[in-house]
Amino acid sequence: MATSANTTTPNTLLLKNPSIFKTSTSAFHAFPISKRLSISIKCSHSATVVAPPTQDRVFNFAAGPATLPENVLRKAESELYNWRGAGMSVMEMSHRGKEFMSIIQKAESDLRKLLDISDDYAVLFLQGGATTQFASIPLNICKPQDPVDYIVTGSWGDKAFKEATKYCKPKVIWSGKSDKYTGIPDFNALDQNSDSRYLHICANETIHGVEFKDYPTPAALLVADMSSNFCSKPVDVSKFGIIYAGAQKNVGPSGVTIVIVRKDLIGDAQEITPVMLDYKIHADNNSLYNTPPCYGIYMCGLVFEDLLAQGGLVEVEKKNIKKAQILYDAIDESNGFYRSPVEKSVRSLMNVPFTLEKAELEAEFVKEAAKEKMIQLKGHRSVGGMRASIYNAMPLAGVEKLVAFMKDFQARHG
Amino acid sequence: MATSANTTTPNTLLLKNPSIFKTSTSAFHAFPISKRLSISIKCSHSATVVAPPTQDRVFNFAAGPATLPENVLRKAESELYNWRGAGMSVMEMSHRGKEFMSIIQKAESDLRKLLDISDDYAVLFLQGGATTQFASIPLNICKPQDPVDYIVTGSWGDKAFKEATKYCKPKVIWSGKSDKYTGIPDFNALDQNSDSRYLHICANETIHGVEFKDYPTPAALLVADMSSNFCSKPVDVSKFGIIYAGAQKNVGPSGVTIVIVRKDLIGDAQEITPVMLDYKIHADNNSLYNTPPCYGIYMCGLVFEDLLAQGGLVEVEKKNIKKAQILYDAIDESNGFYRSPVEKSVRSLMNVPFTLEKAELEAEFVKEAAKEKMIQLKGHRSVGGMRASIYNAMPLAGVEKLVAFMKDFQARHG
Repeated sequence: MATSANTTTPNTLLLKNPSIFKTSTSAFHAFPISKRLSISIKCSHSATVVAPPTQDRVFNFAAGPATLPENVLRKAESELYNWRGAGMSVMEMSHRGKEFMSIIQKAESDLRKLLDISDDYAVLFLQGGATTQFASIPLNICKPQDPVDYIVTGSWGDKAFKEATKYCKPKVIWSGKSDKYTGIPDFNALDQNSDSRYLHICANETIHGVEFKDYPTPAALLVADMSSNFCSKPVDVSKFGIIYAGAQKNVGPSGVTIVIVRKDLIGDAQEITPVMLDYKIHADNNSLYNTPPCYGIYMCGLVFEDLLAQGGLVEVEKKNIKKAQILYDAIDESNGFYRSPVEKSVRSLMNVPFTLEKAELEAEFVKEAAKEKMIQLKGHRSVGGMRASIYNAMPLAGVEKLVAFMKDFQARHG
Repeated sequence: MATSANTTTPNTLLLKNPSIFKTSTSAFHAFPISKRLSISIKCSHSATVVAPPTQDRVFNFAAGPATLPENVLRKAESELYNWRGAGMSVMEMSHRGKEFMSIIQKAESDLRKLLDISDDYAVLFLQGGATTQFASIPLNICKPQDPVDYIVTGSWGDKAFKEATKYCKPKVIWSGKSDKYTGIPDFNALDQNSDSRYLHICANETIHGVEFKDYPTPAALLVADMSSNFCSKPVDVSKFGIIYAGAQKNVGPSGVTIVIVRKDLIGDAQEITPVMLDYKIHADNNSLYNTPPCYGIYMCGLVFEDLLAQGGLVEVEKKNIKKAQILYDAIDESNGFYRSPVEKSVRSLMNVPFTLEKAELEAEFVKEAAKEKMIQLKGHRSVGGMRASIYNAMPLAGVEKLVAFMKDFQARHG
């Protein structure tokens, strides 16, 4: 992506912004024929001069908000002031106007293509992050006395469980806490409650770096927080009652939460449910009951287009596997200088926590990496160590640069 | 603003983006001395060529999301791909990184300056719109049996009341419904419950265009939804227990909700309160308990800077009064061709609903205005007629153009 942006963006600009083309050509004709070639080159280059060249860009390993596809940022930049000739920014559009309606409808239909979501499911663009869904889910599909099961493989699953205690009778049927959240349970050994309304999992634990590679069969419904691996690989949506995800890892900026919910689960919320947490309100109004986070939804739409242009999630997953492989290999082949605490079979493709054998070198590692324009490699404050988040938009070049740096760092400090 | 943008933006770009300056000069030096002047002019002009010229911009009278200051959009455009040399977009920044921390802290401190907010109040940047606050307020400051009073001057006040019925014992002590929401009550005649936990008002009704010019004295606390007139004029915050506002009218894009709450009211939420609706969680974490709507907060910050640069809210109010005056005058001096349903003394400076004596001409009015690049003048579907929303960022030139069009339309159809 890093390299493609340079070549694609000017074209995008000319295609999407006819006025630029006008500007360029009129400027072009303002100069004598003998000078036109050089001038027209400068003008077409100058269409992106508001942003510095690619080499000024850092490799951002933040866990979210996280790096976005460079060509998506270039397109957003070119459309920010005047969206496709509408005479206004997407940020200024009435959410009920034809321009924004076309944006949100396209975003939904592209997401349905990416994940092959059937009409049995509603796709909602909401606010409040996964943390709001921790309450919305039991409020929408449970009665106060309903038992529900939670598998807790990290901090986020634990937070989801704790919030649910306010609205139903959740039970932790498996916790990885005693092993410092480094594994996923054996599904056959799970002690599920046959009356459980749903089984909740966090498909990828952003902080601990453990990821479900397959999914347990629930007594009733499977509900998954996919915030940090959403759209990073194909998923059989039909296996789930609800999938929810904050956008700020793989698909957009923070402030948008996507909920994919089976339609037959909608419409029986508890009486105490705030109207903004009621799925029926949003489903009946196509996510436009009140003003949605319009610009964030627009950005997600640009990312969905980019993922489809890459060949869809099958191709995206291949790239993510390759990136993760070279990083885990570097860790495993360091003779213990670097260490991954996570069981090999469930290591996350998205978030790669690792420690140094000599813990006293970790601060130096982060500091030197930052000097090399590789930022946000410090592990979450709750677990320490390092963490490299390598979401969809992290270029292979970024992981290769990190791996080269790790080997050099080891050579100097090993 | 419309005119200033042309001159200020290139300077902003050079100041905020040293790399552009580098790019320009290197391009500059690539040409023979005899050509430098003309080339450097082209390059400096081309720094804004990604956006069409100002005259391509529409006048957007939408009620929200609404028009934003043109110079703010230009600045956001220039910083979108690489924020002030950070090597990343604001949309990609970790909300716990030093870059975003500086953005949210500056936004809060500028808002405190604008409204002269004392340390007795917390300023929270949240999600979910005013509609989420309709639940958050009683959940945070009431027990289920607490009586509270609502003055209902329009659709939003009514929605706030209905949501509160889930969490406390609200009573409508005055409603303008029988008069189609065209007035504000006489404060002396209000039958307030002396035990009422708070008195709720909607300071400006976006749909009906009625605005409180002064505020009633509550039995206990005054709580105000200021979504559609927030930062449009000075407000004595010390008169209020809670002020809340969706950003998407006067201060930013949709997806950000600002809550100004007296600190002594924080920390006693009902047990059923979703964690994301608990003011204490957000106050204790400086609005960073979970990932906030970072880019929206950044945009609000740019708007706050712009409002301060205009001289603060005293100066902003003067401009708003002038804009509203010429529009209401045009209506009142039309010999009944145009009609404002709202009592003169409480007409909103922000949202100006009006009807045509010949209702059959309204569709034509909206259609012809759109041809003249004045959009979103159709009244809310619930009340019909027309509505011109003229928030802070609507230039005087936009209102003058609308008034000229109204007179011409009357001459042709009167």
